[in-house]
Amino acid sequence: MRDEAEPGASGRTARSRRQLLAAGTALIGGSLAGRAIAAETGGEETPPHVPRWMKEPGADVGSQPYGQPSPYEKDVIRNIPKGGKQYTSSASRTPLQDLDGIITPNGLFYERHHGGIPEIDPAAHRLMIHGLVERPLLLTMDELRRFPTESHIYFLECSGNPGFEVIKQGKTASDLVGLASCCEWTGVRLKTILDEVGVKPEARWVVAEGADAAALARSVPLAKCLDDALLVFSQNGERLRPQQGYPVRLLLPGFEGNMSVKWLRRLNVVAEPAYSREETSKYTDSMPDGTARQFTFVMEAKSIITRPSGTQRIAEGFNEITGLAWSGRGRITGVEVSVDGGATWQSARLQEPVLNRAFTRFRLPWTWDGQPATILSRAIDETGYVQPSFADLTAIRGMKSFYHNNAIVPWRIAADGEVSNGYV
Amino acid sequence: MRDEAEPGASGRTARSRRQLLAAGTALIGGSLAGRAIAAETGGEETPPHVPRWMKEPGADVGSQPYGQPSPYEKDVIRNIPKGGKQYTSSASRTPLQDLDGIITPNGLFYERHHGGIPEIDPAAHRLMIHGLVERPLLLTMDELRRFPTESHIYFLECSGNPGFEVIKQGKTASDLVGLASCCEWTGVRLKTILDEVGVKPEARWVVAEGADAAALARSVPLAKCLDDALLVFSQNGERLRPQQGYPVRLLLPGFEGNMSVKWLRRLNVVAEPAYSREETSKYTDSMPDGTARQFTFVMEAKSIITRPSGTQRIAEGFNEITGLAWSGRGRITGVEVSVDGGATWQSARLQEPVLNRAFTRFRLPWTWDGQPATILSRAIDETGYVQPSFADLTAIRGMKSFYHNNAIVPWRIAADGEVSNGYV
Repeated sequence: MRDEAEPGASGRTARSRRQLLAAGTALIGGSLAGRAIAAETGGEETPPHVPRWMKEPGADVGSQPYGQPSPYEKDVIRNIPKGGKQYTSSASRTPLQDLDGIITPNGLFYERHHGGIPEIDPAAHRLMIHGLVERPLLLTMDELRRFPTESHIYFLECSGNPGFEVIKQGKTASDLVGLASCCEWTGVRLKTILDEVGVKPEARWVVAEGADAAALARSVPLAKCLDDALLVFSQNGERLRPQQGYPVRLLLPGFEGNMSVKWLRRLNVVAEPAYSREETSKYTDSMPDGTARQFTFVMEAKSIITRPSGTQRIAEGFNEITGLAWSGRGRITGVEVSVDGGATWQSARLQEPVLNRAFTRFRLPWTWDGQPATILSRAIDETGYVQPSFADLTAIRGMKSFYHNNAIVPWRIAADGEVSNGYV
Repeated sequence: MRDEAEPGASGRTARSRRQLLAAGTALIGGSLAGRAIAAETGGEETPPHVPRWMKEPGADVGSQPYGQPSPYEKDVIRNIPKGGKQYTSSASRTPLQDLDGIITPNGLFYERHHGGIPEIDPAAHRLMIHGLVERPLLLTMDELRRFPTESHIYFLECSGNPGFEVIKQGKTASDLVGLASCCEWTGVRLKTILDEVGVKPEARWVVAEGADAAALARSVPLAKCLDDALLVFSQNGERLRPQQGYPVRLLLPGFEGNMSVKWLRRLNVVAEPAYSREETSKYTDSMPDGTARQFTFVMEAKSIITRPSGTQRIAEGFNEITGLAWSGRGRITGVEVSVDGGATWQSARLQEPVLNRAFTRFRLPWTWDGQPATILSRAIDETGYVQPSFADLTAIRGMKSFYHNNAIVPWRIAADGEVSNGYV
């Protein structure tokens, strides 16, 4: 049934399972044999003894009308930079190394704000669509919800994930690429609304403006707005969180996160881009020759090993190598993993279904022999693009850039099992 | 791009889009025309005026290290029965009518407990696998995590969803079928662990026991344990919530929720079922002839329209009919919707990807003419099974049963747009 559950992976799966069973048996033959004996005696809390939480009734149903994580998971929170000058324009990262699967829970979705997080009354909020249109429109949130809806699982990623220097400083997977998250979004196709207002022939761009204190504005090519752009009001089933743009945001699948304008209040259909602060002084890429690349929208293919990863510690024997891969250009078609510093590469198994512009979970069974090692992953997407090394990337881009760093991240494993950033 | 984004749905999509554009234009031609004029004057909070939340910086990044919903969504909480005798053995329901897409956020996942919610220390918790095995095993949570993992999006549903009488009493979609939720689960395939311990030839069942005050126990056929059964420690990326079995639960895709034992402490491999309380006095189906059906594991195909649904109010003109369908036997292959009380049926569009044993979101564009109407949906799964009417179901099952009611739910729409339970 395993192969049926993972169509297309049967070849790799078969090989993976042979490796795993060998490794698994070694694992049992080793440390776990002791545990089997321990079962006879048992600790205070372990069978055949009865743990204290079985001796009295637990908490009532509905003791949390809106549920929360276990108190034992209190350290699994957003990763917030320390000592920032101010936090109304700052970021917090998703703790990718603590998460499984591809869905990011809403409480841990990454944040990037330029004027802080507004608390918007949805009954008072309006979305205006105007400019080069036949019938300008002002929509309440109730009116927006009357249009046909769609749901899609898409990743969202900040274009500075990580900055070129940060890649040599971060300790954890979250420090390095935690400005990326993935969830199920529901909203109205922007094309549906643009069809209603009637876009004039001379229109080429749409300027999206947020209702935050920064009035963040970005120019979006009309072609993207007529393609897969969404006006989103829900994430992972429930309404958007305030940090993600409540009550409505723009979502541009595969484009740099800053363009998916949150707290969306205005869509101005125009002939020329606005050349706003966010597309001139920010979110441009400085090249070695002193010029700047502007309007670099698409997030290129990237991957990160989340286990084992920086600050974790592994034991000798079987260890599953697992992580995430994604591409702003479509589906991930492969992830290759090296356990010898890039000398040789193996194909990791991709968790089905592999979705368009979504996180893709990859896994590779590995038996660690206790010797120092460096492990890496590289993503390949449906265009054939292969995630570059930092050396290959900077050979073209130089070190003056901050945004669009999708370089391979190596993790160094010491003889004691400690995992650290291979660039440090 | 819409068709590319929804492979296999192009036929229905084309038809749906024609209907929608006609309906959409009617919508704009009606109430929304007024809104377009309002844009010129604008309200206090609306463009061109600047709303108050743009006049001062918003909250800091990381003001919620673990994020919460907007205060304006405070009423979107679990649906808890009022006036119960006690709540250590009770349930709370997911507010399906307030949610979009297929993912249930962890904070709103339904609950059903028999001894309350234990607060378990994962460092002290153990999972014992014993009985008819070659090498009994006692696992810590860290040891369990060393095995190869898998992630799957599966629904989970209580078998009493709803009870036979409740279907004639519930007001909302949540009242009727809110004991069902869907999320991405990550864990270890149970087969992997059973292969490690070595199941003896005479083994036929596995008795799963929880570490709650009820020590809830259920007997599971060995065949299911060797098929797609999972030992789960994460849901929607993060660790299980205490209400869903933290730190580890059994998950049996498609089986009645009670069997996916939470707070799992023991798997006893045996030759005969345990005939526990939960499979004798409870979770059996009383038939008209006085006999009882036992071990009725699989949740049959079901669907519910979530918008419009009970206690909601709709306006004349375009309304998207949307809801959820699922089957314990595999994929949903179709959902048919009737807007004339069952006289005629139309195929709804299924949101891709349609996943095995997961919620499937369906949608149908509809223009309401303001006349009283009754709307219904029926699910069809990959086995060809069609969701029955309550009359057809009770003709065979009678009214003495409580569990496994998967009857069609009709919603009555009054001339004023008020939506109510068609059975009341």
